[in-house]
Amino acid sequence: MMWDVLWLDARLATMTAGGRPYGMLEDGAIAVQDGRIAWIGRHDDLEGPPAALAKQVHWIDGRWITPGFIDCHTHLVYGGNRAREFEQRLEGASYAEIARAGGGILSTVRATREADDAALYRDAVPRLKALMAEGVTTVEIKSGYGLESAAEARQLSVARRLGESFPIEVITTFLGAHALPPEFEGDADGYISYVIETMLPDVAETGLADAVDAFCETIAFTPEQTERVLSAARRHDLPVKLHADQLSDLGGAGLAAKYGALSADHVEYTSEESVAAMARAGTVATLLPGAFYCLRETQQPPVAAFRRAGVPMALATDSNPGSSPVTSLLLMLSMGCTLFRLTPEEALAGVTRNAARALGLADDRGTLEVGKRADLCVWDIDHPAELAYRVGFNPLAYAVKDGRVRQV
Amino acid sequence: MMWDVLWLDARLATMTAGGRPYGMLEDGAIAVQDGRIAWIGRHDDLEGPPAALAKQVHWIDGRWITPGFIDCHTHLVYGGNRAREFEQRLEGASYAEIARAGGGILSTVRATREADDAALYRDAVPRLKALMAEGVTTVEIKSGYGLESAAEARQLSVARRLGESFPIEVITTFLGAHALPPEFEGDADGYISYVIETMLPDVAETGLADAVDAFCETIAFTPEQTERVLSAARRHDLPVKLHADQLSDLGGAGLAAKYGALSADHVEYTSEESVAAMARAGTVATLLPGAFYCLRETQQPPVAAFRRAGVPMALATDSNPGSSPVTSLLLMLSMGCTLFRLTPEEALAGVTRNAARALGLADDRGTLEVGKRADLCVWDIDHPAELAYRVGFNPLAYAVKDGRVRQV
Ligand SMILES: [Zn+2]
Ligand SMILES: [Zn+2]
Repeated sequence: MMWDVLWLDARLATMTAGGRPYGMLEDGAIAVQDGRIAWIGRHDDLEGPPAALAKQVHWIDGRWITPGFIDCHTHLVYGGNRAREFEQRLEGASYAEIARAGGGILSTVRATREADDAALYRDAVPRLKALMAEGVTTVEIKSGYGLESAAEARQLSVARRLGESFPIEVITTFLGAHALPPEFEGDADGYISYVIETMLPDVAETGLADAVDAFCETIAFTPEQTERVLSAARRHDLPVKLHADQLSDLGGAGLAAKYGALSADHVEYTSEESVAAMARAGTVATLLPGAFYCLRETQQPPVAAFRRAGVPMALATDSNPGSSPVTSLLLMLSMGCTLFRLTPEEALAGVTRNAARALGLADDRGTLEVGKRADLCVWDIDHPAELAYRVGFNPLAYAVKDGRVRQV
Repeated sequence: MMWDVLWLDARLATMTAGGRPYGMLEDGAIAVQDGRIAWIGRHDDLEGPPAALAKQVHWIDGRWITPGFIDCHTHLVYGGNRAREFEQRLEGASYAEIARAGGGILSTVRATREADDAALYRDAVPRLKALMAEGVTTVEIKSGYGLESAAEARQLSVARRLGESFPIEVITTFLGAHALPPEFEGDADGYISYVIETMLPDVAETGLADAVDAFCETIAFTPEQTERVLSAARRHDLPVKLHADQLSDLGGAGLAAKYGALSADHVEYTSEESVAAMARAGTVATLLPGAFYCLRETQQPPVAAFRRAGVPMALATDSNPGSSPVTSLLLMLSMGCTLFRLTPEEALAGVTRNAARALGLADDRGTLEVGKRADLCVWDIDHPAELAYRVGFNPLAYAVKDGRVRQV
């Protein structure tokens, strides 16, 4: 039997852990069968002439192949944008003035509720294409701008539809506990009850979400309210993750670990104690340097502590209209290194191996290994460190999704 | 007589100073004749039906048109890259270790000298295309990695050839006084004499450079050495500009102003006194937030002082392999606002009107006005503030160079 496709004259950054830097393999070859990696190794170890081994052969002239990129934390589906608010703030408007002018997260909630499905879909497409143009083959998309059952479901179903319409896999996350909607002003506990008793059962029944998230922060929900959400999600057998310790240490990452969360995200203020809890629980630390940059934060996440404790670090865009209108995952490699002092290898692991783990998909993707999905990026570079070194440059030759070369 | 081309159903950000924000004109139309803007105004003020007025008519559905972008400070032509050095530093290597491993600016000098013209050209093309993809229609390119007469001339002639091969105008700058070459170790004054007595006359005679630049800094050349270069350039009737006050206040921007410089660039540490001198001389302050970001600097340029004094501010990529491997001018709008607190309108003026002025081309381009070159960007946006608000997103529909729609 012949393989479907064979890539030759490749340099491979397999991103498997524990071996050579980047899991490097020069003079590499990689074969695909039925959308999965069927063989990987040195060209010289192929048994027979290429044309006899595969129906289709790509000689790629020494280009580098990495696993397909995974953006494991985005809020890509929403109505409107906040460009004018961005401008007003730079013109000196205060938060109160912006709120009076209808700004802030609730302006996105209003615009999202008012947008019909077609508008939500149409506005998300250019953002999705921007990610795909840089080699993203899997993207997580959260709800959280509907804040009532039907509107949240609409966000999630638009996200699902994006995944069906484009050669990219969309993983969805229900983030009902993102902000307090106007209907529940002054009654956060009441809203959390609504999330748990109405929205979450809906989501669990429809299967629109692959996981559940919440925003634990002084400006959002308390650890107690957060815990009610995480515990209810676990009762519905949904995996959890958490926006934790972004602006202060409320013990959010530790709480996430207590519920076996896939990831705790932001984590700038995470304590040593929470780091230890994450290590024990196998919870990934998802770093979001785009929000750190946009908000001009100064508290860096405890990267050295994560390293020491063996907590895997992922990197994502946090693409959202307020604190991170970012649609470049390559730029997050740069910012992960420049702002958070990751090494280029850690940054690349953050959008491949560890990002897969943050989505509970480590067995299926994130490294170049036999049996995993053939989601690949082919790069016009001389060394994988270039992916983090350059700023605002896209050296992608092409991406491969499930073994098929993708045209964007 | 009919116009060559007419754009209709456009919203115009003319970027002319003193009127409405962004020089906004809604329901706008713009006509081109012989590569220059022949008419600009409200659609309703056109005298006659469009088809009778122009040979070609583009209805653009309310899209925004801005002047073509101008990147007024780059070092785009060089050999090699410094990705491994970037990696080593993040892995904890000291500057001494990196120098021993052959890193630093002299590694780029070595790689540039060793590269033949074809290699210099080939390596620069993807960087040039990245800038063009975001609407750059004029780019300045400096020498400064040859550091001897023939190698500097090769850099400049490759830059000129890029401008002849692609639909973009290249303005060249001779930067012989960029760093001390190994041949002159310990003898900076001797190198400056070589620059003035050998290199500069060569450059003036061949016409390879449109201006002369130098790097005045503790790690480069003293104010006295810099002044010798500026003064010699003026004797050759070449306009000057200066890398000034990036890491310390040596009075560089004031010195630049003394020689009527087109621009003083970086200017993080520029004093009030130098700001006043720049205002009097009409010297532009070119801000380079990419280098500020990559070097993790903390001293912001005195933006408020520039505003008060009426010093025009430009924004550029400083694209170079060491301190700013940046090839996105849109990202510089974001960083200009986020890191330096420019308003989105100031940021946009920084890559149009004021960038033209930093190149001595204010009469010819940089705003949408009758008589100026028809260098335009057509954007898929709802408001010009979006250009600075989004991060890592390119909403360019297409660019127009000298009246012709450009395909990249
Ligand atoms: Zn988020
Ligand atoms: Zn420079």
